[in-house]
Amino acid sequence: AAAVAAQRRHASSTPPLGFIGLGKIGSGMVINLIKGGESLIVFDPSSAAAKAVEGEAAKAVASIAEVAHDARVVFSALPDDNVLQAVSSELLPKLAARGDRPIHVSCSTVSPSISRALSEAHAEKEVGFVSAPVFARPDGMRRGEATFPVSGPDWAKETVVPLLKKTALGVHDFGEDAGAANVVKLGGNFLIAAAIQSMAEASALAESYDVDREKFISLMSSTIFDCLIYKGYGHRVAARDHHPYPDAHFALDLGSKDVSLVHSAAAQARCPMPVASLLRDRFVASQNSGRGKLDWSAVALKASEEAGSKQVAEAITRLENGRSS
Amino acid sequence: AAAVAAQRRHASSTPPLGFIGLGKIGSGMVINLIKGGESLIVFDPSSAAAKAVEGEAAKAVASIAEVAHDARVVFSALPDDNVLQAVSSELLPKLAARGDRPIHVSCSTVSPSISRALSEAHAEKEVGFVSAPVFARPDGMRRGEATFPVSGPDWAKETVVPLLKKTALGVHDFGEDAGAANVVKLGGNFLIAAAIQSMAEASALAESYDVDREKFISLMSSTIFDCLIYKGYGHRVAARDHHPYPDAHFALDLGSKDVSLVHSAAAQARCPMPVASLLRDRFVASQNSGRGKLDWSAVALKASEEAGSKQVAEAITRLENGRSS
Repeated sequence: AAAVAAQRRHASSTPPLGFIGLGKIGSGMVINLIKGGESLIVFDPSSAAAKAVEGEAAKAVASIAEVAHDARVVFSALPDDNVLQAVSSELLPKLAARGDRPIHVSCSTVSPSISRALSEAHAEKEVGFVSAPVFARPDGMRRGEATFPVSGPDWAKETVVPLLKKTALGVHDFGEDAGAANVVKLGGNFLIAAAIQSMAEASALAESYDVDREKFISLMSSTIFDCLIYKGYGHRVAARDHHPYPDAHFALDLGSKDVSLVHSAAAQARCPMPVASLLRDRFVASQNSGRGKLDWSAVALKASEEAGSKQVAEAITRLENGRSS
Repeated sequence: AAAVAAQRRHASSTPPLGFIGLGKIGSGMVINLIKGGESLIVFDPSSAAAKAVEGEAAKAVASIAEVAHDARVVFSALPDDNVLQAVSSELLPKLAARGDRPIHVSCSTVSPSISRALSEAHAEKEVGFVSAPVFARPDGMRRGEATFPVSGPDWAKETVVPLLKKTALGVHDFGEDAGAANVVKLGGNFLIAAAIQSMAEASALAESYDVDREKFISLMSSTIFDCLIYKGYGHRVAARDHHPYPDAHFALDLGSKDVSLVHSAAAQARCPMPVASLLRDRFVASQNSGRGKLDWSAVALKASEEAGSKQVAEAITRLENGRSS
């Protein structure tokens, strides 16, 4: 009770934070920031999303302008480069008008090039732009298990990092170039997608020799690959369980967007990434097979299909019918 | 002292085991079996290798025939399919002549097809053939951290599994098909090689955006990829440290052999593995670049070279000169 009272005092004595974009990740961050004693001004084009987090410490407003009016530090968690560009066009002039060195914290998975461009545009108007894309699924975010790479001007990070720590297991500083944190995030998502594809191929090989694919993956993910990604996605791949469980999935459509971002960021830097090229094609092909709404681990189904697996057709029918067993 | 005495009694009261092939993995297994109270008859074409393990509990002999004469259960740890075939041609008739249901335990990384063929040939002569390829580097083997997938006839595994447990962290039964354990081993080595290549590409992307590659990989391998393979090979890839450290490396020449085994096992089962195909070509190209004696993580250098890294040329010169810093 004393701690809660202290939080209330803190919340009432410090200026509110702004938050734009209340999807699964954004709303999870808002809830964690409130738990951390912050109060917020929130906005989402969907009033249902805004209402879901509204409460004593989170005031929903009807426009980006109102967020910028009330908050000096504004977070955004948005689906892609285009939406971030559109939101920034509206947000930046309003923040600049405050004249108190405001800060925009971008938590979206976007290209390093848009972060670099926005960083310059913000700096010209004496607004800080901090890039802080997040590694977390909605359920992990709620448990405070998120990891944030962060980059941007040091003066702005001084304010932002302690706030991010209220909604993360770890915050990792990658310097002043705002694009750096995005490169880290894209590199990480690429590693996850590559692990999914590798496990898909290895499981298909096992199955083609009548070796139990679940037993094989479970041995790997409990010994030399004993980590979150191989355990979680390993189970999904081996069992062909690609259902979009609420709060514990990442849609293949979004995964495809991320892998395409990796591919174009690599092309822009003239960095050949043969596995990334292969992944991009497989994600697009999986979307064309109507799997965009499944968990992104469903990219693994192609390996089974190509191997002529007798079991995969049944699994696909089950997934299409939305049954989980 | 009491435990040692008990081991001695056990060793003197049970028949000796045979061991053929005293390379780094074989000699490590022999030492662990001795620690586990076993006595052994050992053979290696190199008398230096045999002398290195010879002692009170390990008697070195001059031929495979002598091993088969003295031991009912004979382990082999050999470099490839051809050597295993040659050793088996000599060993099998001698074992068969014993008439006491002897057992050959094959710990080599070989194709599932040779294990299946040898399994049949052994069964015809009432000799058990157990496949038990091992996941371990020499240093891990010595620390008892090896993992064995095992497959073959149940009656033979009943004898073999308790022996393997004396030199392993875990022994995992994959059924009666002798080829199954080899598929598991090849699938696992493929996953390692794919992880190395993925980290190579992701690090090259980071570097091309001036993001510290070691810091990037270290973040990944301490969070969502917090496991042996990403930690160990992640450091090597990010730091371009591909020196063949004694007992803590796996030569690229051998890695290339394993990846080719994966590729041909997949082809034989008509199982397309696009990442495995890509890996095979990169390993062969790395051998052609004279990197066969480096650690197999040196396959990662190609990604840096292709990205036009300014640092990679210096790293390669350092590696060619055998300097570690």
